[in-house]
Amino acid sequence: MNLENTNIRNLRNFSGGPGALPENVLRQVQESIHTVPDAGLSILGISHRSKWFADVIAEAEHNVLSLLGLNDDYHVLFLQGGATQQFSTIAMSLMGTAPGLPEYLLTGYWSGKSVTDAKHIGPIKTLWSGESEQYARLPNDDELSFSPEAPYLHYISNETVEGIQFQRILGLESVPRICDMSSDFLSRPCEANRFSMIYAHAQKNLGPAGVTIVVMRKDLVARCKDDLPEFLDYRSHIKAGSIFNTPPVFAIYVVLLITRWLKNDIGGLVNMNAINEAKAALLYQAIDNSASFYLGRSAKHDRSLMNVAFNLDTPELEKRFLEESSAAGFSGLNGHRAIGGLRASLYNGVTQHAVEDLVEFMAHFQQQNQQ
Amino acid sequence: MNLENTNIRNLRNFSGGPGALPENVLRQVQESIHTVPDAGLSILGISHRSKWFADVIAEAEHNVLSLLGLNDDYHVLFLQGGATQQFSTIAMSLMGTAPGLPEYLLTGYWSGKSVTDAKHIGPIKTLWSGESEQYARLPNDDELSFSPEAPYLHYISNETVEGIQFQRILGLESVPRICDMSSDFLSRPCEANRFSMIYAHAQKNLGPAGVTIVVMRKDLVARCKDDLPEFLDYRSHIKAGSIFNTPPVFAIYVVLLITRWLKNDIGGLVNMNAINEAKAALLYQAIDNSASFYLGRSAKHDRSLMNVAFNLDTPELEKRFLEESSAAGFSGLNGHRAIGGLRASLYNGVTQHAVEDLVEFMAHFQQQNQQ
Repeated sequence: MNLENTNIRNLRNFSGGPGALPENVLRQVQESIHTVPDAGLSILGISHRSKWFADVIAEAEHNVLSLLGLNDDYHVLFLQGGATQQFSTIAMSLMGTAPGLPEYLLTGYWSGKSVTDAKHIGPIKTLWSGESEQYARLPNDDELSFSPEAPYLHYISNETVEGIQFQRILGLESVPRICDMSSDFLSRPCEANRFSMIYAHAQKNLGPAGVTIVVMRKDLVARCKDDLPEFLDYRSHIKAGSIFNTPPVFAIYVVLLITRWLKNDIGGLVNMNAINEAKAALLYQAIDNSASFYLGRSAKHDRSLMNVAFNLDTPELEKRFLEESSAAGFSGLNGHRAIGGLRASLYNGVTQHAVEDLVEFMAHFQQQNQQ
Repeated sequence: MNLENTNIRNLRNFSGGPGALPENVLRQVQESIHTVPDAGLSILGISHRSKWFADVIAEAEHNVLSLLGLNDDYHVLFLQGGATQQFSTIAMSLMGTAPGLPEYLLTGYWSGKSVTDAKHIGPIKTLWSGESEQYARLPNDDELSFSPEAPYLHYISNETVEGIQFQRILGLESVPRICDMSSDFLSRPCEANRFSMIYAHAQKNLGPAGVTIVVMRKDLVARCKDDLPEFLDYRSHIKAGSIFNTPPVFAIYVVLLITRWLKNDIGGLVNMNAINEAKAALLYQAIDNSASFYLGRSAKHDRSLMNVAFNLDTPELEKRFLEESSAAGFSGLNGHRAIGGLRASLYNGVTQHAVEDLVEFMAHFQQQNQQ
């Protein structure tokens, strides 16, 4: 069993996450289950206290900072619990550390979760909501008014479910910006040094489910409240270098391999973005040129490069699309269960070739099914 | 790259955790990185919302209950954050739900952590402490007096660092027993139905680091406080069938493979225990028959079947033992950094053959180094 004979279905995986990872990385992961080069043990049996794993953490931290163009004003943490755990932990750590209320943007399914979880901890201010417009667009600058009194501004850069993505940075320079970049982290340059905290779970562009990356500026750490249970306190994890307790060794190792791939094979985030833009352009073009057979879900200027959400005229036709695409070797093209429809996720690991195959399939399907 | 040519170092891995997993399971894991049979995708790219993964969760839950001899009075949860997260969450969930204080046993390094974390949440009663005796033994029955007023009793069945293990069940039948079985879960039958909650991280007997199993009786769930952040509330995870948010898909899949191996290859926990007893007997016998060249660390009647902690006469000799054993292809024989010395962990995945090799090496080392 090896990856020499490429499994085409891995290459045609458009899942919203966990999603496709680069074949090159999968090959190294497969080898590591047997023996990790330099360690002489299966990745599943290596102690997290080993010199080898200390080097993994150090290199992964270094690669994340270097890809983002950050210096050591920032900590990089590898945590568990997903973005969901961060929704509560951020509010528990920072609510009440400035005179005003924390400010949140409600731009889709996932920021809805972030708002609900923060409200469970205490009062917040929702600056803008796209709910009445079914989250089909993002706010314009003239719809937003930020307070300098807020302890932080929280928003989500890319809404995975609805397929909308900010193409600019929001908020005041004087208020800590906290951004959930779970679904577009390391997919493009992001002016990371303008954020006080960026976090992302791994299962989109970075690796397998089970690890969450937090990038946090040191001056924000200093503001955090210190009365949290120790496992929720960012300081515990910083002090312990992400080994406060046994970390998800395997998932972190895969993240390291992904960051190496981004640096060495792709050549950094500018190149990654160019590849991602080309993939998205191809697919959106196919939708736009379909004479409304395929219906893009969101406002054109807010379209996501990561998640292309679209519809067909009827649920029956969408069902047929899913069945026939699955039979043709595509997977993960169903929309999120919250809104249905169709969605192709174009994370870093999805190849241009896979998108070309999809566009070809879509043209064929249209030909067969157009009234 | 495959596992046909067994890497002997994987078989001679005596790490305290993450530790050795069965070769049979590693082979299936390696295959799954390429393609999971029945799913047609890499295990790292399968959606946690797929039918395939729902079946994984269902079968893993069923296998855990069936191996423990439990019925559906119990929930099985697959969580993140390790036993450390449970230390705080248990106290946050159950402190104050009965007139008395929660009762804890302080029997070693890890129960020390459980006590510290619980005290951070509120007052507890430490029923017994082995600290003044360097945790070389466990309490006798006549040293323990349990209160019927306690909301729960918490203890750790096996202290990994010191190598001591309870061979009996503690506490009153009327007070919920909560046991951290991180290092001996599914290594032997444990009368699970006498516990209200058992939890264990995976990285000893169950799989890779990154998933924590919680087995919780329904009447204990009903007692839990309901004002916790949602991600910490056991009810959220129960309601969502362990998919409250994206779970660690890979780690849970490995746990499933381990439970299948325990059921089908080993034949259940009675057999597993017999194998583990034989391995431990062989190693302890080698220590006891060494004319005090090897010094067992703990009281004989409290010796752990999982972690054999021992010393040599001088730190220099211990250092030489580690160097030479490493050169001979053994790994993970260093004691925990908290106490030093030597330790051989004999988790389920460690074979009888590996222990025979170790005993042979120890005899040889003794011959070469005895004064």
